[in-house]
This record gives sequence, structure tokens and C-alpha cells, in this order.
Amino acid sequence: MQNNEQLLSVIENYLAQTELPAEPELLYAPIGYSLSGGGKRLRPMLVMLSCGIFTDDVQQALPAAAAIEMFHNFTLLHDDIMDNAAMRRGKPSVFARWGQNVAILSGDAMLICAYRLLGGVPGHLLPQVMATFNEMALGVCEGQQYDMDFERRTKVSVVDYMHMIELKTSVLLAGAATIGATIGGAPEEDCRKLRRFALELGLAFQLQDDLLDSYGDEELGKAIGGDILEGKKTYLMVTAMSRADETTREVLRRTYRDETISNAEKIATVKTIYDRLDVPHLTEQQISLRFDRALGILDTLSVDASRTRQLRAFAESLMGRRK
Amino acid sequence: MQNNEQLLSVIENYLAQTELPAEPELLYAPIGYSLSGGGKRLRPMLVMLSCGIFTDDVQQALPAAAAIEMFHNFTLLHDDIMDNAAMRRGKPSVFARWGQNVAILSGDAMLICAYRLLGGVPGHLLPQVMATFNEMALGVCEGQQYDMDFERRTKVSVVDYMHMIELKTSVLLAGAATIGATIGGAPEEDCRKLRRFALELGLAFQLQDDLLDSYGDEELGKAIGGDILEGKKTYLMVTAMSRADETTREVLRRTYRDETISNAEKIATVKTIYDRLDVPHLTEQQISLRFDRALGILDTLSVDASRTRQLRAFAESLMGRRK
Repeated sequence: MQNNEQLLSVIENYLAQTELPAEPELLYAPIGYSLSGGGKRLRPMLVMLSCGIFTDDVQQALPAAAAIEMFHNFTLLHDDIMDNAAMRRGKPSVFARWGQNVAILSGDAMLICAYRLLGGVPGHLLPQVMATFNEMALGVCEGQQYDMDFERRTKVSVVDYMHMIELKTSVLLAGAATIGATIGGAPEEDCRKLRRFALELGLAFQLQDDLLDSYGDEELGKAIGGDILEGKKTYLMVTAMSRADETTREVLRRTYRDETISNAEKIATVKTIYDRLDVPHLTEQQISLRFDRALGILDTLSVDASRTRQLRAFAESLMGRRK
Repeated sequence: MQNNEQLLSVIENYLAQTELPAEPELLYAPIGYSLSGGGKRLRPMLVMLSCGIFTDDVQQALPAAAAIEMFHNFTLLHDDIMDNAAMRRGKPSVFARWGQNVAILSGDAMLICAYRLLGGVPGHLLPQVMATFNEMALGVCEGQQYDMDFERRTKVSVVDYMHMIELKTSVLLAGAATIGATIGGAPEEDCRKLRRFALELGLAFQLQDDLLDSYGDEELGKAIGGDILEGKKTYLMVTAMSRADETTREVLRRTYRDETISNAEKIATVKTIYDRLDVPHLTEQQISLRFDRALGILDTLSVDASRTRQLRAFAESLMGRRK
């Protein structure tokens, strides 16, 4: 199989070749714009690498890989309307550039295009792959709805939060891994294991995302504290709320809502409480737990350990870790 | 096969049984609300009746019939956001009742649920049925985009208009008929013919809808002239514009935009011009032409004429005609 860099370029080429009609322009141009906007192509990579564990002929997984990337970009397109987000990957969002109606309709077309790509899956596997894809897609919608529900709820437990990110983030990775394995001809048991692997990896990835937003390296170019300023519920915040006494909880709530203090002060106040409650360390622990579980599952597959090496390396690079 | 009334109740039962999770409520409740909001179930009826031409075992077409009805209701749900429509079938639209974000996301879930229902199609037919469904679904999106484009265009030709309604209305009926025939085991040639049949029927149906909006029977409960008051481009309007001299065209344009005259006066002025240009009669002619073509195609199928009787009766009842 090609190495990860080669695989990525195979995926990029396949996506770039996906033919879209020229007319009506306002329906199709936003799809091309959205697909060519970059992104790390994690999900199609996961399809290809999961397939590659079981067969050397990974090309047959390309349509499904592209379908999942198309689906992912569709969710971003519609999420940006719901979140009123003007920017996406450093460019104006489709919503900001073309307006709400174009974003709704071209997003719909994009979801249909994802299914059209899925139609390229070998016929005898299509019923099973489609069932996995549908459950995955509905799960992601459920996650997005819970995420919006949480914005209006004052109390969100750690368990609630983990359930939400499992749906919103992990389920898509799990679908990618399962579909890749299915197309590769994996035994059912291995498909289930790869699903668990991707669920755990997705949780580790999302928690790391939460952690880096408040404790990342400023030099990497991303501003620190965005989640705190947006008043978002993150693993850090729900963990802090679950560990704090009532007085501290009230300070956290008040600080989150306070529009009179400076950004820097708001971030500093919240992070001081996080630190006092040992939240960063607990988050690190949870990330390691999930990530180690994920890698551990790979060891239990029915294949030779050498076949999982490439997926393992990918997972490690994803988490910025080398073991 | 059951008669049309029995078929309708089989479809209603099947739709009512479609299981939706209870949570998250804001994702799934609007889907149930939307599906149970009535509607004539034309499209699933067309699936069942097209299937019934080729086999007596029409039950196997139920999942696809439900998928198409689910898809149709999804389009209505999202169209209502784009059109800012507060009412749908005499009830508040999902958009009006739950707000924009819920309408976007539950619509997305509805589209996925349509594909989930489609997964119930016999496995060996799934690739073909899914390809038909995808082309149909994209066509409907294209039609909606052209419809929105037309709102901002001053010049829309009769040909442009026919192309738009073919996509927006007929393509869905064509997909329903083709998929029903495919599941019934029809030869490819008959599938293609049923597709043409449904395209023509859809055009006849849409033109009749346009005609009745301005020339229907007030006593049937629908207010006359809604399209005129909304300034909508209809077959009547684009035909009038194509036949009028420049002076009359200017009167039509001005009247459409004029916010100072009463509703009754606006409707009367436009209809007087329609009448003078023979538009109602020309529309009737076009409806008959399309409808006769549709029925003529049924005569050319490879089956005994008796097998198309039920579909023929359905088409006639749809057009309010008994021949």
C-alpha cells in the first residue's frame, strides 16, 4: 500500500475529479468551494487505512472514502448556518459568501452527492455499507442537536458531554473505519473492533481539541481561549463544574457570562479555576486513557501486527504523539 | 392488487410504523410532525402502482415508496425555510413552529431517513434503485435552485420555465415510477417508458396547478390569485410575457410590482390580460397535450393493457378527469 502521504494525494485527486455540473451555478459552485477548502482528510484516510489492514487493493475504498469526506463537509456547511459562522478554514463560509438559502440547498445537494459517491461501493457490499453510513449520518445529526441543546442548558454532566461528542465527532470516525474494513473484506468481529478503535480515538481527539483550545501553544498560530470567550461547554468546563463547590461554580458561571471584563481577564480567571481543580491534568489522563484503549484494540485484530502499523502511525500523528 | 384506496392505507400504515427515536426530541419530533401532516401521498402511490404493473407482489415496493414520500416531505421542510413559509397543509411549518436551526437539522435527518428506508429495497436491486433515487434527488435540488434564480430574473422564457418545473416537480414523479417499475421487475425499456409517462404527467399536473391558482373554483376553498399576488412566475405569466407586445409586458410587470392597488384589482388586471392573450386556453391545450402523451405511453408498455388500468385511473383522478 502507498504510504500515508501518497494515500492523501490519491484521495485529493479522487475528490478533485468528482464531477459536478456547471449549472445551476448557485447549487454546485458552493460544493466545489467547500470540498476544495482543504481540511486534513482524516476521515477518508481512516477509510483507506482501515481497508488496507485487510487487503492490498485499497483503491476500491476510494468512492466510500470520498463519500465520507463529502458528508463531513456537508455537515460543516450546514453547521455554519446554524452557528452563524462567517469563516471556515480561513475563508468565508458558504453561508457568509452566498447567503442562507444557497447554503441550505447546496448542503442538501452535497448530502445527496455523498450518497451518489457511496453508490460506487461494490454492489454486493452496498446494503451493509449503506446501513453503516445511514446510522453514522443520523448519529452525527443527533450529536449536533445535543450540542445545540446544551447551549441552552445550564447543567451538562460529564457523561452528557461525552455522549454528545461521541455522536458529534466519534461516530463519523467509527463509520469511516467500519466501512473501510467492510470493503477490505474484514471479518465482522474485526469490523466491530475497528469501530470501537475509532470511537475511542475520536474521543481522545476531541478532548485534545478541547484542551489545546485553552492550553495550546500560542505559537502554533491559534489564539488561546476561544472556547472560553464563546462560553462553550467543553470537557474542561463540564469537568470543572462537576468538581467545583457551589461558590466556585457560581464564579465560573458569572465569569462566562460577564461582558464587562476583558478577554484576557476572562480567560485568566477561568484557567486559574481549571488549574486549581486539576482539570488540565485530568483531561490529559482521559485523553491518554482513550488513546491507549484505541491502540490496544488494534492489537486484538485477527491480522498480523504488521498490517496495523500504518493505521497506528496515522493515529499517533493525529494526536501529535510518537511512541 | 388492492384498489387505490386500500393501497393508500397500506402506505399510511407503513409510514406511521416508521420508527423514530424519541431523543433528541428537537431532531425527531419535527420529522413525525411533518410526515403525519397529510398530503396526498401521490408519489408513493406512483411507486406502488408502477410496481403493480409488473408484479402482484407490490409489498416489496413499500420501503422505496416510503423513502420517496420521506424525501418529498424533506424537500417541503427545507423549501419552507427558503421561502420563509409559515404554513404548510393548514398547520404551522416546521420552520415556523421550531425555528430555522431545528428545521435545517431535522430536514437533514429526514433526508438520511429517506435513504435508510431505501435500504429496505431488495439487495440485488439496491445499486440501481439508489442510482435512480440520487439522480432524482439532485434534479429536485436543481429545480428548486432554478426556481429561486427565476425570482430574481426579469426574463424567463417558456422553455426555461418548463425545464424548471420538469426538475422541480416531474423528476420526482419520474423517479417514483421508475423505481416502482424496477422493483416490480420491469424490463429496462418499460422503466424508461414509465419515466417518460411520469415526466409528462408531472408537467400536466404542475400546469394544471398553475391554471387552477388563477382560474380555479373559489368554492373548493382555495383563494384564487395567490400566485399573482405573490408575483410568482407561472406558466400563465411566462406564456403571457412571451405573447404580449412591449406595452402589455410593461403593464404586466408594473401591475405585478404595484403595491398601491388592491388585491382584487391586481388579480383582475392580470387576468384580463391573460384572457386577451388566450393564455387560459393555451394552458389547457398544453395540459391536455402532456396528459394525452402520458396516457399514450402507457399503451406502449410490454404488458397487457389490463395491467395499466389502475395506474391510468389514478392519473385521471389526479387530474380530476374521467375519460
